Amino acid sequence: MATVSLLSDEAAGPEARAVFDEIRAARQTDYVNNFWRALAHDPALLRATWDRLKGVMAPGALDPLVKEMLYVAVSTANGCEYCVHSHTAAARAKGMSDEMYGELLAVIGMAMQTNGIVTGLQVPVDEVFQA
Amino acid sequence: MATVSLLSDEAAGPEARAVFDEIRAARQTDYVNNFWRALAHDPALLRATWDRLKGVMAPGALDPLVKEMLYVAVSTANGCEYCVHSHTAAARAKGMSDEMYGELLAVIGMAMQTNGIVTGLQVPVDEVFQA
Amino acid sequence: MATVSLLSDEAAGPEARAVFDEIRAARQTDYVNNFWRALAHDPALLRATWDRLKGVMAPGALDPLVKEMLYVAVSTANGCEYCVHSHTAAARAKGMSDEMYGELLAVIGMAMQTNGIVTGLQVPVDEVFQA
Amino acid sequence: MATVSLLSDEAAGPEARAVFDEIRAARQTDYVNNFWRALAHDPALLRATWDRLKGVMAPGALDPLVKEMLYVAVSTANGCEYCVHSHTAAARAKGMSDEMYGELLAVIGMAMQTNGIVTGLQVPVDEVFQA
Amino acid sequence: MATVSLLSDEAAGPEARAVFDEIRAARQTDYVNNFWRALAHDPALLRATWDRLKGVMAPGALDPLVKEMLYVAVSTANGCEYCVHSHTAAARAKGMSDEMYGELLAVIGMAMQTNGIVTGLQVPVDEVFQA
Amino acid sequence: MATVSLLSDEAAGPEARAVFDEIRAARQTDYVNNFWRALAHDPALLRATWDRLKGVMAPGALDPLVKEMLYVAVSTANGCEYCVHSHTAAARAKGMSDEMYGELLAVIGMAMQTNGIVTGLQVPVDEVFQA
Repeated sequence: MATVSLLSDEAAGPEARAVFDEIRAARQTDYVNNFWRALAHDPALLRATWDRLKGVMAPGALDPLVKEMLYVAVSTANGCEYCVHSHTAAARAKGMSDEMYGELLAVIGMAMQTNGIVTGLQVPVDEVFQA
Repeated sequence: MATVSLLSDEAAGPEARAVFDEIRAARQTDYVNNFWRALAHDPALLRATWDRLKGVMAPGALDPLVKEMLYVAVSTANGCEYCVHSHTAAARAKGMSDEMYGELLAVIGMAMQTNGIVTGLQVPVDEVFQA
Repeated sequence: MATVSLLSDEAAGPEARAVFDEIRAARQTDYVNNFWRALAHDPALLRATWDRLKGVMAPGALDPLVKEMLYVAVSTANGCEYCVHSHTAAARAKGMSDEMYGELLAVIGMAMQTNGIVTGLQVPVDEVFQA
Repeated sequence: MATVSLLSDEAAGPEARAVFDEIRAARQTDYVNNFWRALAHDPALLRATWDRLKGVMAPGALDPLVKEMLYVAVSTANGCEYCVHSHTAAARAKGMSDEMYGELLAVIGMAMQTNGIVTGLQVPVDEVFQA
Repeated sequence: MATVSLLSDEAAGPEARAVFDEIRAARQTDYVNNFWRALAHDPALLRATWDRLKGVMAPGALDPLVKEMLYVAVSTANGCEYCVHSHTAAARAKGMSDEMYGELLAVIGMAMQTNGIVTGLQVPVDEVFQA
Repeated sequence: MATVSLLSDEAAGPEARAVFDEIRAARQTDYVNNFWRALAHDPALLRATWDRLKGVMAPGALDPLVKEMLYVAVSTANGCEYCVHSHTAAARAKGMSDEMYGELLAVIGMAMQTNGIVTGLQVPVDEVFQA
């Protein structure tokens, strides 16, 4: 259960509904996921979050699938269950194969492992790595 | 300062030196960075870590640059200073442009932000996201 | 499910029951929440935790509502589901309005975002910020 | 050292300099701190971050000092050294007394402690805490 | 729900089944827990993880029960629910008494608390602690 | 640099000095480390932290060296540099050998790795692991 109710289209105010409609149009699906329905209690936060997300995740120097996998990596390191589920589903929808997913998990695991060992050893940064 | 000394080639034992040589050959540089010199106090851990890292980061379904950026993402979420520096340098060596780096940072920041809001709201996972 | 059973008043020993009674008196409710019932397996840990919590959360230079919101912020960054739920409920009971809650979430999200970008960039601390 | 150079006013492009000027005006000081100088390599990210930060941290239902202390709390839980320093300095500039700071640290420590114990025990959320 | 299905013995391929059989033999139980059944989608990752885990958790300079408690401590700090449950169960199976468990939780809580206060204060490392 | 000055014996008030003296007596050394000197600005927090630490880390069902290694494990997962350094030094002072340290690091790394993979896969908890 969320700390707030998940607002249906009817329960959401007009500003929130307008964002719901943009999400539907952008994703070409009628389904609006729970994150946005929970955020709809604060239409300004909903609007700011959607506008920013849309811009950041758009195609650019990195392709959208790479961006989704980066999102999964951060969400996993942060232990955010919802975020792992929603962005893994999004990565699959954008073309992540089983093999790519296996390698994503292997890199996350490897990074977590060396993060732990490096932090335990408190390894000082090599001068050659600094800008 | 590390919690252990950083072993020079001379101070490292023969098993550790053998790993140093493999690192030099694989990366085509004489430079062996501090992480491996700190790990050299435990040759078995050094060997296991290098062997696994080499396999995980090799080209596969994901290209090596994407893997380095995923490594940076995880290391950033975990707050591992050394790991951020060393893998950002590695990503640049593998071709990460300024524009790609800017987008990487933007995705990390966006993921951190929504991770925080989702966790604060305790949004339940949508059924459609589940396998 | 917890890793231990949640002890009812009957199952708890006399030292644990004494803490339960103090919790009831302090909060003016008969309800003792699951955290304390799980901790009751170790009466000394239960006692030490309750005594310290009571002191730390008491009115002081910061008012109790601000303290609860700080607790929510830390618990969210740590991804502790139970803690987010219990302290969000406590903050509401102490007067957190919907508008305050929206701003709390926005600050948490903003802090998470810049934490990520700062860590990715490894920004050195400005001299003017140091004591 | 950062992963990028810290751009002086001269080295920054016109869009970044415009943000620097807004920061100076908003804070009534000529000093622009390192975070913004590192971000200036990506003027779009700099602009988006400053615009959002300005809005989120403005007076609202929560006063700016409370918001700064919430920022310190999140940054501490995330272990972001730069963020802890810069927002502790900001909180002091907005009126945080020594006594308030001591209580802030005590609440952070208490929250971290019970986060750990709750997570270790995997305490299930009480029904009464759910929305 | 996992992001992938949990593979039964029948659904798993021969390489995955071979690992399942090694797990059964090593633990002297027919039960193969969900982690391995989820990993079975990627037999190479399953094999590498099991081989490494077996080696790391074997008796050595530290006894297996101490290793399991260290695993619980790391998993708790990372907020990994599954890991906390599985390694707490494993620690109990290896002889962790209620009293030991209470002390484990108390140390975890204490460490979390001082981690938070130290990070909030940004205490510099004493020279005497450096290698 | 800390966010506060490190108080010398002369600068600390009488309540803080009394705690310094207890630390000296308990550890049989004249050296009082930076954590306590930073905490001395808030004598009540200093007193509460020292009293609790002393109790938690005392010999019990777990021996003090195991407790120090657990402290290192939590501090590493949390990325607390000071805590890693001070408790690694304490563990060595209590008898941690090089071999034990290598195994400690290996377990931390293994736990971090599987924490990441489990979280990425969102593996559901097996019924047999629940209390």
